[in-house]
Amino acid sequence: MKKHMLLKVLQAVENHELSPEQAFIKIKMEPIDDIGFAKVDHHRELRQGAAEVIYGEGKTGEQITAISKSLLAAGETPVLITRMSKESAEIVSRELNLRYDERSRVGIIGEIPVPDGKGTIVVATGGTTDIPVAEEAALTAEAMGNKVERLYDVGVSGIHRLLSHAEEIMNAHCIVAVAGMEGALPSVIGGLADCPVIAVPTSVGYGAAFGGVAALLSMLNSCASGLSVVNIDNGFGAGYLASMINHI
Amino acid sequence: MKKHMLLKVLQAVENHELSPEQAFIKIKMEPIDDIGFAKVDHHRELRQGAAEVIYGEGKTGEQITAISKSLLAAGETPVLITRMSKESAEIVSRELNLRYDERSRVGIIGEIPVPDGKGTIVVATGGTTDIPVAEEAALTAEAMGNKVERLYDVGVSGIHRLLSHAEEIMNAHCIVAVAGMEGALPSVIGGLADCPVIAVPTSVGYGAAFGGVAALLSMLNSCASGLSVVNIDNGFGAGYLASMINHI
Amino acid sequence: MKKHMLLKVLQAVENHELSPEQAFIKIKMEPIDDIGFAKVDHHRELRQGAAEVIYGEGKTGEQITAISKSLLAAGETPVLITRMSKESAEIVSRELNLRYDERSRVGIIGEIPVPDGKGTIVVATGGTTDIPVAEEAALTAEAMGNKVERLYDVGVSGIHRLLSHAEEIMNAHCIVAVAGMEGALPSVIGGLADCPVIAVPTSVGYGAAFGGVAALLSMLNSCASGLSVVNIDNGFGAGYLASMINHI
Amino acid sequence: MKKHMLLKVLQAVENHELSPEQAFIKIKMEPIDDIGFAKVDHHRELRQGAAEVIYGEGKTGEQITAISKSLLAAGETPVLITRMSKESAEIVSRELNLRYDERSRVGIIGEIPVPDGKGTIVVATGGTTDIPVAEEAALTAEAMGNKVERLYDVGVSGIHRLLSHAEEIMNAHCIVAVAGMEGALPSVIGGLADCPVIAVPTSVGYGAAFGGVAALLSMLNSCASGLSVVNIDNGFGAGYLASMINHI
Amino acid sequence: MKKHMLLKVLQAVENHELSPEQAFIKIKMEPIDDIGFAKVDHHRELRQGAAEVIYGEGKTGEQITAISKSLLAAGETPVLITRMSKESAEIVSRELNLRYDERSRVGIIGEIPVPDGKGTIVVATGGTTDIPVAEEAALTAEAMGNKVERLYDVGVSGIHRLLSHAEEIMNAHCIVAVAGMEGALPSVIGGLADCPVIAVPTSVGYGAAFGGVAALLSMLNSCASGLSVVNIDNGFGAGYLASMINHI
Amino acid sequence: MKKHMLLKVLQAVENHELSPEQAFIKIKMEPIDDIGFAKVDHHRELRQGAAEVIYGEGKTGEQITAISKSLLAAGETPVLITRMSKESAEIVSRELNLRYDERSRVGIIGEIPVPDGKGTIVVATGGTTDIPVAEEAALTAEAMGNKVERLYDVGVSGIHRLLSHAEEIMNAHCIVAVAGMEGALPSVIGGLADCPVIAVPTSVGYGAAFGGVAALLSMLNSCASGLSVVNIDNGFGAGYLASMINHI
Amino acid sequence: MKKHMLLKVLQAVENHELSPEQAFIKIKMEPIDDIGFAKVDHHRELRQGAAEVIYGEGKTGEQITAISKSLLAAGETPVLITRMSKESAEIVSRELNLRYDERSRVGIIGEIPVPDGKGTIVVATGGTTDIPVAEEAALTAEAMGNKVERLYDVGVSGIHRLLSHAEEIMNAHCIVAVAGMEGALPSVIGGLADCPVIAVPTSVGYGAAFGGVAALLSMLNSCASGLSVVNIDNGFGAGYLASMINHI
Amino acid sequence: MKKHMLLKVLQAVENHELSPEQAFIKIKMEPIDDIGFAKVDHHRELRQGAAEVIYGEGKTGEQITAISKSLLAAGETPVLITRMSKESAEIVSRELNLRYDERSRVGIIGEIPVPDGKGTIVVATGGTTDIPVAEEAALTAEAMGNKVERLYDVGVSGIHRLLSHAEEIMNAHCIVAVAGMEGALPSVIGGLADCPVIAVPTSVGYGAAFGGVAALLSMLNSCASGLSVVNIDNGFGAGYLASMINHI
Repeated sequence: MKKHMLLKVLQAVENHELSPEQAFIKIKMEPIDDIGFAKVDHHRELRQGAAEVIYGEGKTGEQITAISKSLLAAGETPVLITRMSKESAEIVSRELNLRYDERSRVGIIGEIPVPDGKGTIVVATGGTTDIPVAEEAALTAEAMGNKVERLYDVGVSGIHRLLSHAEEIMNAHCIVAVAGMEGALPSVIGGLADCPVIAVPTSVGYGAAFGGVAALLSMLNSCASGLSVVNIDNGFGAGYLASMINHI
Repeated sequence: MKKHMLLKVLQAVENHELSPEQAFIKIKMEPIDDIGFAKVDHHRELRQGAAEVIYGEGKTGEQITAISKSLLAAGETPVLITRMSKESAEIVSRELNLRYDERSRVGIIGEIPVPDGKGTIVVATGGTTDIPVAEEAALTAEAMGNKVERLYDVGVSGIHRLLSHAEEIMNAHCIVAVAGMEGALPSVIGGLADCPVIAVPTSVGYGAAFGGVAALLSMLNSCASGLSVVNIDNGFGAGYLASMINHI
Repeated sequence: MKKHMLLKVLQAVENHELSPEQAFIKIKMEPIDDIGFAKVDHHRELRQGAAEVIYGEGKTGEQITAISKSLLAAGETPVLITRMSKESAEIVSRELNLRYDERSRVGIIGEIPVPDGKGTIVVATGGTTDIPVAEEAALTAEAMGNKVERLYDVGVSGIHRLLSHAEEIMNAHCIVAVAGMEGALPSVIGGLADCPVIAVPTSVGYGAAFGGVAALLSMLNSCASGLSVVNIDNGFGAGYLASMINHI
Repeated sequence: MKKHMLLKVLQAVENHELSPEQAFIKIKMEPIDDIGFAKVDHHRELRQGAAEVIYGEGKTGEQITAISKSLLAAGETPVLITRMSKESAEIVSRELNLRYDERSRVGIIGEIPVPDGKGTIVVATGGTTDIPVAEEAALTAEAMGNKVERLYDVGVSGIHRLLSHAEEIMNAHCIVAVAGMEGALPSVIGGLADCPVIAVPTSVGYGAAFGGVAALLSMLNSCASGLSVVNIDNGFGAGYLASMINHI
Repeated sequence: MKKHMLLKVLQAVENHELSPEQAFIKIKMEPIDDIGFAKVDHHRELRQGAAEVIYGEGKTGEQITAISKSLLAAGETPVLITRMSKESAEIVSRELNLRYDERSRVGIIGEIPVPDGKGTIVVATGGTTDIPVAEEAALTAEAMGNKVERLYDVGVSGIHRLLSHAEEIMNAHCIVAVAGMEGALPSVIGGLADCPVIAVPTSVGYGAAFGGVAALLSMLNSCASGLSVVNIDNGFGAGYLASMINHI
Repeated sequence: MKKHMLLKVLQAVENHELSPEQAFIKIKMEPIDDIGFAKVDHHRELRQGAAEVIYGEGKTGEQITAISKSLLAAGETPVLITRMSKESAEIVSRELNLRYDERSRVGIIGEIPVPDGKGTIVVATGGTTDIPVAEEAALTAEAMGNKVERLYDVGVSGIHRLLSHAEEIMNAHCIVAVAGMEGALPSVIGGLADCPVIAVPTSVGYGAAFGGVAALLSMLNSCASGLSVVNIDNGFGAGYLASMINHI
Repeated sequence: MKKHMLLKVLQAVENHELSPEQAFIKIKMEPIDDIGFAKVDHHRELRQGAAEVIYGEGKTGEQITAISKSLLAAGETPVLITRMSKESAEIVSRELNLRYDERSRVGIIGEIPVPDGKGTIVVATGGTTDIPVAEEAALTAEAMGNKVERLYDVGVSGIHRLLSHAEEIMNAHCIVAVAGMEGALPSVIGGLADCPVIAVPTSVGYGAAFGGVAALLSMLNSCASGLSVVNIDNGFGAGYLASMINHI
Repeated sequence: MKKHMLLKVLQAVENHELSPEQAFIKIKMEPIDDIGFAKVDHHRELRQGAAEVIYGEGKTGEQITAISKSLLAAGETPVLITRMSKESAEIVSRELNLRYDERSRVGIIGEIPVPDGKGTIVVATGGTTDIPVAEEAALTAEAMGNKVERLYDVGVSGIHRLLSHAEEIMNAHCIVAVAGMEGALPSVIGGLADCPVIAVPTSVGYGAAFGGVAALLSMLNSCASGLSVVNIDNGFGAGYLASMINHI
């Protein structure tokens, strides 16, 4: 029951067009979200920059184009599209001004907003093969109004590479640490940083990597404080959460 | 917002004691369940016989006694207590007229209702070690107003024992099939019966039984139609669902 | 031994054409199903509407056509074909009047029967990607003579969408709740409904979804009463069981 | 090499007591943390309230007493002790003013600081059996200077209980959602809230709960945005991270 | 329907005391096992030596005594009791002449029969800790009338120990190979022998032994021909099968 | 050291051409298999019919042709080729008289021997999709000189189909029971039969079938005596072992 | 901070161009690896022969060519490329003198160094299908200056094949034992050898081999002393470690 | 066949007391180990220092005493006893001069030998709870004649603690890295060191640590070269292998 609808019912009672009992039935029968929960979404809109997100997996280029147009028409910009195939990107590009990152399969329509978060989000990876997931996180965060610093290929088996970036790590407001295989990067970063660290296991590796399970378990068991974990390869989720933390 | 509260608000609007806008705020702020969802529970109460259930695990005998007394005072009877230790049962028995089944750790206070379901619920087990779980199911169903027929120790590796009860199986309205180890009983019963079969894996067995996982997987993969599965050792859940089906 | 065959043997004894001993051998040697178990199938036929089911996986279009023809010739209608490829559907369509749903890979030949179940079966999904499995359930139930109400994309992370359909949920006679990823939909529905809820995990998702295992475990551990689970992606099994419950 | 040590070396060069080459060797050979990394800890100290944490598992009461005394002597207060046995708590209490919560096995010595975080941290649980883990989170957050609101026993199979607290959820700055069994609570909360949600699976349950694995997987696969996960039963980790987010 | 019962019915038809139709109903209604399946057990009895088996797990000494007495009264001897606790053994010993092997928890009442199998059964173990399971197999086989040769502690990491018994292995009629940890013994034996090898994984070991899973998987993947596997720690099953093979 | 080689050394000692010490060195240094272990293979050859086996997986048609020719030249016949692709079969057929079964991917060159085993081997399957694995077992057994009876599609969810073949099951000397999904067939057969039952799990099924794991676990946990298990889809291993048992 | 940079800073202090305090800041801020950790790599270079390694997976032929050229220009030779596709190999071959082993997907550019390790590295496999992984190990070791002896297809189910090579095993300085399926080879070798054995599980096999997990677990549980394990199919890692041990 | 026995047989041939054929039978029948394999053990003895090892698990104090005495009588010293209970240690101490380390459950009888390995073995742990396993490794290595340097509690989430010991790590000849939980220590050490690193996962931790599985997987997937893994908690195995490498 939208606000004006509820008001209308109440006014009808005020005007004796409806008895309280009839109004009672009407109110009770209405879908709950119509009463108050739509607030959630508007609330979010106000605080989370302006990015609208389309999950591109399993959607055709035509479907993505249509949804994007309707969002743009409603003034929602930029539009962030995740897990979009190259084929879909080509189709969308025919009609809309799409920037598409092939590695991360992320597309963005409209201007990237000027960063309005409180600080910098660091996105770090253990190896080069983790970069697609990291870029999904980084582009998501950028589309949501964050300054992002990328520290790629700073895996723990060459600890000096990581340590040469200790300054950036110590100064970050939130860190997304992406790693496959042994998944140890977030633990080491978590020990250096004093901001929240979001660990993203990747499905990189072979054999006993088990499609990211080894990295996932490693991260869940980290001794470092201030660390939490998202699903395997979930760069978007990490970028979104990092933005949320950076805008609190 | 309880029914009378909402009516009061609406009457206040009718009486111009509240403006529609003030009423709007009041309604929107009220906890949702107060508007309409309490209906759920009353609804349930009307259709599900009268058993009230206490999950006894981790509750002391004194706690169970207190809860039971309050339920009995409210006219809720019988009271069904699951996973109750022998020690708790002894404590409850000091003050209340408890029937306690040690094998299944189920206790019942008050009269078992006269069966009012549509037909018979068969509770079958593969072996004798599955009986505690089966009894949890059977006593739950009885406490909820069902006629229960027990077919125990009719495991598939002695198929003639099961087949000698083909008549009961064919005549059941719902069957709870309880088995550990290879968990094949529900499949065979499912092929004989034409009523819903609720499969309950048990944690009976050793080695590759993996605490009921082997039986669980076996049941989930059954070729028999009309079969569904509950958690390992969840006799209560199966008995409750069987009663629900038998009262539709 | 079919009924008339057994009677014949017994008449032969009556007529002294067979000694009791010879009859004894004859009866003991006969396949068991010939004595009484064929009853099962006829029994089922009488109570379960009239749908005959063909499991299409791994069958060629020609094979499905042939089986369907023989069923139709025997008056069995409608014929429900599950897991049928688009290619098979095209082949079957050349000779038979097939309605084919590409999403769910379900085909139906013949008239959908007028619903004769006791109430409505609600089929709900958490997301849009769960719809193929849900449609397999819904079409199965419809082919077996049930009124089906679809509530798609009412996942728990936008709880207001689900709650706006609370009425339908509370009025259902049986609910099939289909969800992948975190698999939480059946639990929430199970708390709102007071009818049996059949939970269907789907293989939707990635990473730690493990092809539906996360959803499956979530459903097996639901705190909601009256809930049971079928195999991952087993829409047919859920629809069949729902129909069975709706016809008790 | 502590700051004053490095300065001393440099002054020795300035005074020509050491050649640059000798100083080079000295600096290169010094443990790295002595140069700059100790900064980390002081940094942390300044921003994270003042709680010092002792992991009590496997430590005797005497050991905990000794460590606590040394911390208190250094002005570190309050001291938070997690996973402390009742026996240890009794021993510590003989000499120190310990408040001990038996359910969560958390002890606190010294004054809880006045909350200085930005907003409220909500700690919610699915059931009553999840409360010990939730209290570990809540007490940790309080000891680190946060206002905590507890919403216990608001599991998703009785969704109205949760929804009646929608206001608190929408107003939180960070939410810790604790649940065992199907682990669906964080997903539903994540859909209502627009702040970070930290999901904590608990080892509550039996059978296919697999000691918290079912809940863990459910949480990792949540469709809700802004959600991340910590280890099973890791209330401390969640409370610590929530505090960190609330102090950014 | 026992043989004489069926004959009686048939004679009643012959004598016109029953119509064929009445006899039809009578026969169809009788439990199936009464017609012919009891044969199975007698059949088995004739061919499998004479041991009767009691699964002692979860049975009291008094229960075992009672069952044993009734078996002995029926002339069934010897009685083999597996997984019997020391306490039960002591109770049984008060009334019956029990030989009890504490390591394997096997008890035998009555004379071990003179071996009547075709050849020798070799029971081999990888280590000394596998002996309890091996003895369960060996004593079972002996109680069923087999000559058993024990080759204990001949694990593959000291291959010369095994090879010094190559002659016994080559001359066996059936081999039970018992091993925990890496579970490699059956593979090596399977390559030396040309008789069936029954592999028994044991739950011996720690860490990644996973309670016998490592050994189980190793055995299932053996390259050796003529090898099959039973459940973890299932010495009885292996001994029983070996006896069956040795008596074919 | 081949027999004649060892004799030669010994004769050289007899003729004083070698001192005992020189002979000692020669014997100790010789590869072990040259002394006595080649016996194994000849032994096997004598008792196991005459089939030579080629594992076709990963071998080209040309390689298989070459190996087959050399075996045939040595008088080894028939040659059994398992897991051979259709392409390889076509290549082999150009030069050799190959019978190829496409379902089971088994090829046989040369005459199938007249059965010389002691009795009949029954090969049974739960469903039609299990037939490829069953045929691998059946053809292997036939190639090794066994009479094989096929009982296909006698799964336990239609128990009457299985029971109508009770006679064949009771008369078998060894049974290979092949089943996927719930894997319950071997348990039921094991209860009817009194001969060894070799259970073969198949990778048939979907979802929680986990590629045969559900069936494998079910079989390992069977309550039926005389049952053992081989690897998932290992029809050859089962057929080979069955032949071995049938020739003891 | 490179050596000369640090010296410069120190000299600037000596020359009073920088105050000790200014130098302190400069030193503390410099990346750690610049101070001393680059030593690690040079150290390694000196001791590990001269092979430079490129991980070819996911790199194009052009990328590999470019990296190789730059390494060769720097005098690094030979260049070892692992997991290189045939297509990449063809591209690299156009410009550089590449030797490519198709089975193991290993390429080498430049001269294999004359062995300078202490002894021989034995690389053994259980079957022929394990050879690709073994060759990755063997070629890696050879490229790093080791003498390698290959013992292929010496699996434990034909133990005489292995034992005929006992001499080579006993004389090795380090052994790489590669096996899939039951993974028992390293255990047997470990019992014969008195040098370190590096076990490499392979993903060879089917069914319960679980892509190498069975072999991995078997190896981790080996009773043989002096044995350690690397990841499934990690031939490179084993060859590299073996070389390291052989050069200590 | 012991050397003198084989010589005797050969002399008997030389003396014509045995024909070559009779000798052939005699030799072929002799246990293989008597010919040559006993060499293995003596070989080992010569190269591996002098420690004899008794696996104490499951052995009584009396048994350990007896074995130790017989070893000491044979001059084998020191005797190393692993996994010995405190009770056993007390019993052994009554008669023998035992040093017993309660944390690691290791006992040593006799003098620790003067280190004769090539360099230092570093034993490092991530946390203090890993120390018992580390001590098992360290004491084993010391008992086998190695100089051991202990670096305890240098886990990666406080990387400066580890880096302050970079010198020791770079100078080691072999490193045993012991860690539970995320198991990242060996990866970081492996990147710093250029000697073999033996990774030992421990069962320390809770929840998703899964008794050491998380650490095990992490270690198997390490990106660091020169790293291999032993079983969970297998300190002895790591210490033994380290000693072997240090004595090559």
